[in-house]
Amino acid sequence: MAGEGKGVVLLGFWPSLFAIKVKIALSEKHVDYEDREEDLSNKSDLLLKMNPVHKLIPVLIHDGRPVCESHIIIEYVDEVWNHGPTLLPADPHERARSRFWADFADKKVISSIRSVWYGKAEAQETAKKELAEWVKLLESEIGEKAYFGGETFGLLDLSLVPYYWWFLALKKSLDLGPVCELELPKLEEWLKRCLLRDSVNTALPDLDKLCKYIVQKREKRLAAAAPAN
Amino acid sequence: MAGEGKGVVLLGFWPSLFAIKVKIALSEKHVDYEDREEDLSNKSDLLLKMNPVHKLIPVLIHDGRPVCESHIIIEYVDEVWNHGPTLLPADPHERARSRFWADFADKKVISSIRSVWYGKAEAQETAKKELAEWVKLLESEIGEKAYFGGETFGLLDLSLVPYYWWFLALKKSLDLGPVCELELPKLEEWLKRCLLRDSVNTALPDLDKLCKYIVQKREKRLAAAAPAN
Repeated sequence: MAGEGKGVVLLGFWPSLFAIKVKIALSEKHVDYEDREEDLSNKSDLLLKMNPVHKLIPVLIHDGRPVCESHIIIEYVDEVWNHGPTLLPADPHERARSRFWADFADKKVISSIRSVWYGKAEAQETAKKELAEWVKLLESEIGEKAYFGGETFGLLDLSLVPYYWWFLALKKSLDLGPVCELELPKLEEWLKRCLLRDSVNTALPDLDKLCKYIVQKREKRLAAAAPAN
Repeated sequence: MAGEGKGVVLLGFWPSLFAIKVKIALSEKHVDYEDREEDLSNKSDLLLKMNPVHKLIPVLIHDGRPVCESHIIIEYVDEVWNHGPTLLPADPHERARSRFWADFADKKVISSIRSVWYGKAEAQETAKKELAEWVKLLESEIGEKAYFGGETFGLLDLSLVPYYWWFLALKKSLDLGPVCELELPKLEEWLKRCLLRDSVNTALPDLDKLCKYIVQKREKRLAAAAPAN
């Protein structure tokens, strides 16, 4: 089966926040890999074999062996391709801090994004407020720093940039009300700085394409949830 | 405020799986710490200050600075007290494998445990089957190995032993039906081996006390959920 030989294969899906994070990490480490797009409505035998527990992307296959779950893949990439600067900070407390906020996004922000995207009216309103709180928190957290980790781009930046990109796409494609009025100059500067990096620029999908995907998927979900009459 | 000075303080709660894991990790690393029990119905100012985002235990306070989320605390402990054997395996693929199964327990097994504990009838039946599948998976995974990591006790063992302990307590205190018939000789041997370690023996709560807690809490939850008439 293809993917089981030598080398690095990533099973991903272009709009996936989790896959984007891994792509940035691989690029930052200059890892050559085959980017294999999955059809999530018809998952490949390779995906089902490599991640039989969760059956989810992303999966990194390295010399035929799978590594699953984006935060675990990123630490794996940092440990295996250990030339050059590391993605995680050297100081244990800073490492813990980076892991905490990356984990917070994966656990909490993702559910706000999903609710804003295709939740019911009430849940959507709550989620809009959560997203607003989250970006305001990030705005105050980045402050005068170049990156979330300080002077250098690292785990926390690569973990947060896909979320912020999704936030921009949601804002552009749906009616987020007062969220659109928020001024986030520090985050905008940080995003520009991140977009200067090939790793980020290449991994983030085209914003208009992402907006189109968000709208289409939302319409499909809402139509499926509507009572037939 | 106490806990903000030098030294190590753990904010925990005795039956918490997540706190137990951290206690085992601290003991394995021979870290002297103050074990401070939280009243979760009346959280301390220190907990709210140290974990303002999640407001949850466990929190490790090291020289006044908090580290939150059990899996992040354990990696922190492994990195800071880095004399002697590490809790995580040295090989990156083995590290990823340990992190994956620890993460699986924290994400999936915990929700099966909660549903068996105080879920409604249908959810409880599903969760019993999930728990049975999980322990059968562990039984085949440990096989002839001394520990989940191989020859030495490590991250995966300390992450799984509190879950297995809770499984035993649930089995003893509630009617789990066919789950009680499962024969798990390899896991039983592994548990005995783990219990020989001071770290595990001290951190795991008394089984009868845990059973009593499970039954009392279940009755309270069910009474609160029952319609008043």
